[in-house]
Amino acid sequence: MTTVGKVIKCKAAVAWEANKPLVIEEIEVDVPHANEIRMKIIATGLCHTDLYHLFEGKHKDGFPVVLGHEGAGIVESVGPGVTEFQPGDKVIPLFVSQCGECRFCQSPKTNQCLEGCIYKATMSSLETRFTCRGQKVLQFTGTSTFSQYTVVNQIAVAKIDPSAPLDTVCLLGCGVCTGFGAAVNTAKVEPGSTCAVFGLGAVGLAAVMGCHSAGAKRIIAVDLNPDKFEKAKVFGATDFVNPNDHSEPISQVLSKMTNGGVDFSLECVGNVGVMRNALESCVQGWGVSVVVGWTDLHDVATRPIQLIGGRTWKGSYFGGFKGKHDVPQMVKAYLDKKVKLDEFITHRMPLESVNDAIDLMKNGKCIRTILSLE
Amino acid sequence: MTTVGKVIKCKAAVAWEANKPLVIEEIEVDVPHANEIRMKIIATGLCHTDLYHLFEGKHKDGFPVVLGHEGAGIVESVGPGVTEFQPGDKVIPLFVSQCGECRFCQSPKTNQCLEGCIYKATMSSLETRFTCRGQKVLQFTGTSTFSQYTVVNQIAVAKIDPSAPLDTVCLLGCGVCTGFGAAVNTAKVEPGSTCAVFGLGAVGLAAVMGCHSAGAKRIIAVDLNPDKFEKAKVFGATDFVNPNDHSEPISQVLSKMTNGGVDFSLECVGNVGVMRNALESCVQGWGVSVVVGWTDLHDVATRPIQLIGGRTWKGSYFGGFKGKHDVPQMVKAYLDKKVKLDEFITHRMPLESVNDAIDLMKNGKCIRTILSLE
Repeated sequence: MTTVGKVIKCKAAVAWEANKPLVIEEIEVDVPHANEIRMKIIATGLCHTDLYHLFEGKHKDGFPVVLGHEGAGIVESVGPGVTEFQPGDKVIPLFVSQCGECRFCQSPKTNQCLEGCIYKATMSSLETRFTCRGQKVLQFTGTSTFSQYTVVNQIAVAKIDPSAPLDTVCLLGCGVCTGFGAAVNTAKVEPGSTCAVFGLGAVGLAAVMGCHSAGAKRIIAVDLNPDKFEKAKVFGATDFVNPNDHSEPISQVLSKMTNGGVDFSLECVGNVGVMRNALESCVQGWGVSVVVGWTDLHDVATRPIQLIGGRTWKGSYFGGFKGKHDVPQMVKAYLDKKVKLDEFITHRMPLESVNDAIDLMKNGKCIRTILSLE
Repeated sequence: MTTVGKVIKCKAAVAWEANKPLVIEEIEVDVPHANEIRMKIIATGLCHTDLYHLFEGKHKDGFPVVLGHEGAGIVESVGPGVTEFQPGDKVIPLFVSQCGECRFCQSPKTNQCLEGCIYKATMSSLETRFTCRGQKVLQFTGTSTFSQYTVVNQIAVAKIDPSAPLDTVCLLGCGVCTGFGAAVNTAKVEPGSTCAVFGLGAVGLAAVMGCHSAGAKRIIAVDLNPDKFEKAKVFGATDFVNPNDHSEPISQVLSKMTNGGVDFSLECVGNVGVMRNALESCVQGWGVSVVVGWTDLHDVATRPIQLIGGRTWKGSYFGGFKGKHDVPQMVKAYLDKKVKLDEFITHRMPLESVNDAIDLMKNGKCIRTILSLE
């Protein structure tokens, strides 16, 4: 019996309040409104930004909410005005929209979209199609992939190759694009250059892969956990530095290793102290440091001489990728074996185990866990 | 009677210690050693960096010293190994050397030179050719233009057009190149763009001129002194904002004026609070902010979201100009009336009045004072 035109009841992991375990609930998912797409989520990754909202964001008005923004699924039905998608299309929902018409979308300099919701205080869209136990439940970053069904505006959906394995390419919905693109699009890593990547979670490993793909000759992976180096080598790291092994600041360690500092550094932790270290590890004159890790609780600082001395400080958001256009290309790059994805996946489990997945991530015991929603 | 090969006795303004008036003294200037040029300084500007060393630098080992680094002169004699210069050449001494051979000089990405002295703690060269009252007197940034004669390494001297008026083009030795180049070379201001320049001293006015030269359609001049706007208009400013006229932060004022922020901002004050404001006045997505003003006493800070949101933070040193190559081109641009210089000069006085010139600058009563040393 078709679900089209009807409210769907399905399973979702609901975050009722901050700092509490998610609860598997039956929720109601409304029909797609104008320009919206209702999709069945097949698989989703769990990303630090989900945890950030749950544990650090301190947005008291950001609950209850269905988290998750790194998913992949299949179009179930479309709302009025949608012509680009049809039921059965494989799709990746995007937390960075691409309306194609605003002055940001029209500029080649940014992947941000004025129609997007990313700068709303709660990081949730103002509208939601979810209800649970009689009350409205927010959608996270306009996506909410910890639900068997979700509704997303068509400006925030990428149609991907029908042959793509959804339980793997879902990683292109956030972490892998974020790290890879930060190196390739934002830092614009150059062939023969020396790079440093701080933090070897999925985003950092993807940044290592981006540096390698761009032709860097030396990629120094920096992490407090020495176990991460073997994995980093898989993605192209050539050196490993554990700051705990050194008494002097990491920027001095890297400077000595590289005759004055690295050409490019990428901060993939989300820690303002590490952001400073990453900048100051760059070579004077032309070093470029990119902030990739997400945090907004504290100021990031440095001495002006670091900038006057010729360093550039940038930030990257979703790796600079324009989602609707570029995510399908990244899916193709995976299918063509030009981008690795399987190597990020350390755990697979059903949605019901989402709190176990959260614990793994909080304790640094996974790279990426894929949750199955089927 | 020739001075070649002999120690020269001449007048110089000596800073015996921090926070004290300079003293006009007779000093001895040694013969040029290998690869060095002894030159007669005809005129010099006074720059904030001279004051910074005198009043804020707190380098107790940076005294006694002859300040001044924005001068122009005529070659008196050359040391062994110098073939590029001969007596009578008109020259501008450079506080940023260009050896032409180090990996920095070989890179198009930076104007810094590994042979230069700029990062020595005292901002003084380790060697000096000056003595006074029986003791060694340091040279400031390897130049020291507050002396009738000085000795400079040939890697830090630009040979300029013989028709150039030295008492005007001396301004290209620091301030004007610093501001103009920050807009043109570092920010890479684009035609049709909107810019904001914070601080309307000589460097800021030169930055306004650089934005105008690069084709900016709107140039917002920001200063606490409303008297500066008339001068800024001369260099191309289209709007003026006095932060004291507004109750909300200047970044919000500029955002409202420009539909979200400026494309390029340049901080020409040397104040870490203003540096932050300049960055945060840039448009999300692609705004570029350049730190031009010199200070290194405090950290500069912002929220990571400012960078992650797509802003780029850079710094500029001597406007990104490679001195030996580019300063002669800037002199030519002045002679061809493509760059203004006369409009910066508000006062002229003899070296003996250097403390009056310092007072004018400290009190914001001048743009540039030219000191004559003849």
